[in-house]
Amino acid sequence: MAPNEIFQYSIVSALMDGVADQGLPISTLLSHGDHGLGTFRHMVGEMIVLDGVAYQMKSDGTVASVDVSPASKVVAPFAMVTHFQPEQTTGAVLSDKADLFGLLHFLLPDAHNIYLAIRIQGVFKSITVRTVGGQSKPHEGLTEVGAHQTSKTFEEPVEGTIIGFRSPAYMQNVSVAGDHLHFISADKKRGGHLLALVSDGEVKVEVAPAYKFHLELPAHDPEFNEAELKGDAAAVAAVEG
Amino acid sequence: MAPNEIFQYSIVSALMDGVADQGLPISTLLSHGDHGLGTFRHMVGEMIVLDGVAYQMKSDGTVASVDVSPASKVVAPFAMVTHFQPEQTTGAVLSDKADLFGLLHFLLPDAHNIYLAIRIQGVFKSITVRTVGGQSKPHEGLTEVGAHQTSKTFEEPVEGTIIGFRSPAYMQNVSVAGDHLHFISADKKRGGHLLALVSDGEVKVEVAPAYKFHLELPAHDPEFNEAELKGDAAAVAAVEG
Repeated sequence: MAPNEIFQYSIVSALMDGVADQGLPISTLLSHGDHGLGTFRHMVGEMIVLDGVAYQMKSDGTVASVDVSPASKVVAPFAMVTHFQPEQTTGAVLSDKADLFGLLHFLLPDAHNIYLAIRIQGVFKSITVRTVGGQSKPHEGLTEVGAHQTSKTFEEPVEGTIIGFRSPAYMQNVSVAGDHLHFISADKKRGGHLLALVSDGEVKVEVAPAYKFHLELPAHDPEFNEAELKGDAAAVAAVEG
Repeated sequence: MAPNEIFQYSIVSALMDGVADQGLPISTLLSHGDHGLGTFRHMVGEMIVLDGVAYQMKSDGTVASVDVSPASKVVAPFAMVTHFQPEQTTGAVLSDKADLFGLLHFLLPDAHNIYLAIRIQGVFKSITVRTVGGQSKPHEGLTEVGAHQTSKTFEEPVEGTIIGFRSPAYMQNVSVAGDHLHFISADKKRGGHLLALVSDGEVKVEVAPAYKFHLELPAHDPEFNEAELKGDAAAVAAVEG
């Protein structure tokens, strides 16, 4: 895959339906990109892929890089990655996610109906993240998993990186429509799914348009095969927005 | 791309919104597959890709292979192709599209939530096809284009090939959910988008599951960039079902 082509494993609707028992080995995932996000078997924590390393950020507050040795059994039931190569870089003061949305809409006027790969680096006055704690029973859907998630706001300035994607509205239920972003601190001790941010002055915003989207669907996965996958755009927005 | 991986250019919602002024050169399309379907600039006719050759089937009843020389300006604003390699082959008597739906559901019980590539060859007692005549003005949507389409039923036995794909329900608006099939006669003189069929005894049904879906979105295409692409599942089903 060329830079900024997106590889995605499975679909968000499958997570909504609780399909999280199997997945793609992380080493295979990383062969498709060095920048991305996702989750782990049984939705235990949030995944961020930063500079080619995958980290698992759990609801108990721990962050650890993922074992990608041949013996590793760690898999992603859902993930998106790309070989990120920024096409635009700018400094920006961001007081919320809406600022980011408007900025990228302005920076890339020809990219309104495609994917974007996004990276933001700097110091944040405030960052709010959530980390899903995992399924409490088989097939438990993401909405229920999200109901007992941990959300945390770091109020002291924290340095770190936000990684993620903007997906077009027509991809809701396949991807997460809009901006889907995960955060990890520079010391790799904190992070999760980004809910809110306030930058501490200017942060570095990098973005690239993505016109090619490669979707791999789960094979030999009875849970996926039997799922209804009806999709519920409002529910995806509520739990992943 | 390995056999049975699907390549798609643009999305069906874009056709619904009348985005058909630009597209992918047919020679580029054929580099991604030898089996497929689509349409042409301004939705002038139906495309079928049979054994690596693209044919344009127009509403005036003409069928012609597409010029793929370097000088050719023929483009597809929407198309799907694959390098087809059947994984199951069976003989079947088909009295309607529902028969086919049920047969493939039964033949591939592990492939209920993925794409399928489909090829049916034989003699048909009756085949009904439609061919869109093209946009009568810029940005005219597929529903309106479909309203002045030509539909024809061939009642004498006709030998030919049906080529197409089953797309999962969660892909409605991106692809055409359900079975999307085009037909061309063995003498390459008749064909179009398949609406109904009755086989003349047994026909040969070949199918392969497709777990990998590669989507290329239009770049440098203001019409696509400015389209609303809201999607209307019922309207897609009405015009493409």
